[in-house]
Amino acid sequence: MDIAALFGQIQQKASFLCVGLDTDLSKIPSHLRHEKDPVFAFNQQIIDATHDLCIAYKPNLAFYEALGPKGMESLQQTLSYLPKTLFTIADAKRGDIGNTATLYARAYFEQMSFDAITVAPYMGRDSVTPFLAFPNKWVILLALTSNTGSDDFQQCLVAGDNPEPLFQKVIRTSQAWAGPDQMMYVVGATQAEKLQEIRQLIPDHFLLVPGVGAQGGSLQAVAHYGMNAKCGLLVNASRSILYAGNGRDFAKEARKAALQMQQEMQILLDRYL
Amino acid sequence: MDIAALFGQIQQKASFLCVGLDTDLSKIPSHLRHEKDPVFAFNQQIIDATHDLCIAYKPNLAFYEALGPKGMESLQQTLSYLPKTLFTIADAKRGDIGNTATLYARAYFEQMSFDAITVAPYMGRDSVTPFLAFPNKWVILLALTSNTGSDDFQQCLVAGDNPEPLFQKVIRTSQAWAGPDQMMYVVGATQAEKLQEIRQLIPDHFLLVPGVGAQGGSLQAVAHYGMNAKCGLLVNASRSILYAGNGRDFAKEARKAALQMQQEMQILLDRYL
Repeated sequence: MDIAALFGQIQQKASFLCVGLDTDLSKIPSHLRHEKDPVFAFNQQIIDATHDLCIAYKPNLAFYEALGPKGMESLQQTLSYLPKTLFTIADAKRGDIGNTATLYARAYFEQMSFDAITVAPYMGRDSVTPFLAFPNKWVILLALTSNTGSDDFQQCLVAGDNPEPLFQKVIRTSQAWAGPDQMMYVVGATQAEKLQEIRQLIPDHFLLVPGVGAQGGSLQAVAHYGMNAKCGLLVNASRSILYAGNGRDFAKEARKAALQMQQEMQILLDRYL
Repeated sequence: MDIAALFGQIQQKASFLCVGLDTDLSKIPSHLRHEKDPVFAFNQQIIDATHDLCIAYKPNLAFYEALGPKGMESLQQTLSYLPKTLFTIADAKRGDIGNTATLYARAYFEQMSFDAITVAPYMGRDSVTPFLAFPNKWVILLALTSNTGSDDFQQCLVAGDNPEPLFQKVIRTSQAWAGPDQMMYVVGATQAEKLQEIRQLIPDHFLLVPGVGAQGGSLQAVAHYGMNAKCGLLVNASRSILYAGNGRDFAKEARKAALQMQQEMQILLDRYL
C-alpha cells in the first residue's frame, strides 16, 4: 500500500487507529478456548467488529511465536482474513545482517504479504536496507519507544558537531536509506512532547505511535505535537480494545472501545488537518 | 546450563566452536529435498557429523520463520534431536517491551528449552530483564556486531564524563542487569582488535563471536585478544561448515570443516589457557 492510499483510508474512515492484535490465549474469553483455533476465532471477531473504524492491524509476533507452529498458522489465517484495504504491520522488531534480513523480508512481505515490518536499528544500514528492496513495502524503524528502558540508550547524547540523542541520530542517519514513501518511525505516545523535535527532522513521515491506552499515553498530546498535513500518524491500541470485555460480547465491547477512539480521532483530524 | 558446565564441555572437547544452523532450503543438497522435512533431515546429519567437535548450536530463527509453520516444526524437531550436553542458542535478536519480552522468553526458554537467546539492546533494561527471570538461562546481548552497519550507531561516541562508543555503553550499563553467569555479549570476529578494550570492561563474560569464515574474521586474532582464563569465547561458524560440500557426502565435508576449526581451537586453548 502506498502513502496516498494510506492517507485516502484515513480520510475516508476519519480514523488513524491501528489495532494491535496481541492476542493472548490466557486473556481471551473462555468460551473461545474450545474452538479449533482459539486465537484465530478471537481475531476474526475482533476484525469483524473493528475493521470499519481502524486503518491498520498490527499483530505482535511474540504472541504467535509463543504458541509454536500452531501460532504461526493462526497468524497466517488472521492475515488472510484481513480486508485488503487495511494496512498490515508485522510487529517483529527484527534486525540482523543482510542475508538474514532478506529472509525476514521474504517471510513477512512475500510469504505472509504484510505491508510493513517493525525493525530495530542497532545493527545499522545493512540490517535495514534489505527490507527496502521490496516495492510498496514499508520499514517502520524503532526510534523512541514507549517503555521506561528507552532512557537507557535511545536518549543518550551522541557526541559530534551537533550533539543529539541517539534516537535523533537514528532518524537522521536512516533518512539516507529511504524516504517517507517507504519508511516510518516508531515513537511512543508516552514521549509525546518529543514529537515536536521529531517533526522538525521528519515533517512528512508517518509515525507509528504505541503506548496510548494501557501504557498511559495521551491521544490529544500525540495529535497536537505529531500530526502533519497528511495526518502522518498511526496510533496503536492493543489491550484497551482487545480485552475491553471478556464475556460472550467481547467483540461488541471491543467495538465500543475502538469507536470511542475513532470519534476522538475524528475530532482531532477536523482540528489539525 | 551453567558457566561451569559450559567450561567443562570446552575442556573436554578442546573446542569452543558453535555451529550456526542457518539452514537454507535453497542451499541444501538436492537429494534431501524429497525428504518429508528436508531442513530437519539436513540438520540431523550435520548434528551427527559435528556434535563431538562443537559445544554449541545456534539456529538463526530467520531461516525457520521464512518457511512458515513448517519451519517452526523443523526447528522444534532439531532442538529435540540435539544432545542435552550441548549449549543451544536461539539467534533471535529479539527486543520488545516487558510483557512481550516475557512471551518471547517463554517461547524460547520453556516451550523450546533453548539455553540462550540473542537480544537487541536498543529498547533498554525492561526489554532485557524479563529473559533474566529464568534460572540457568542466558541472554546474549548484541554489543558490537560483525556487519558493516555496526559503524552506523554501535560505534557512535556517547557523550558524558567519559565519552565512549555506544557498544561500550551497552556493555557497561547492562552489567547492572546480570553478571557473567547469565549474560554474554555478541562481538563480531571482524572487530577482533576491539576485543582488547571489551575485555577491560568484562574480563569474565563469555562472548559469542560470529563472523569467522564466510564473513572474513580471524580465529587467531579473536583468541589472542578475547580469550580469558575460562576460554570465555563461543566462536560461531555457519556457512563454512554447513555448505562445505553439497553432494551426498555433505555431512562428511561438514565434519572436515568443523574438525579443522576444532584442531585450530585446540592449539589456541593450549596456548592461552
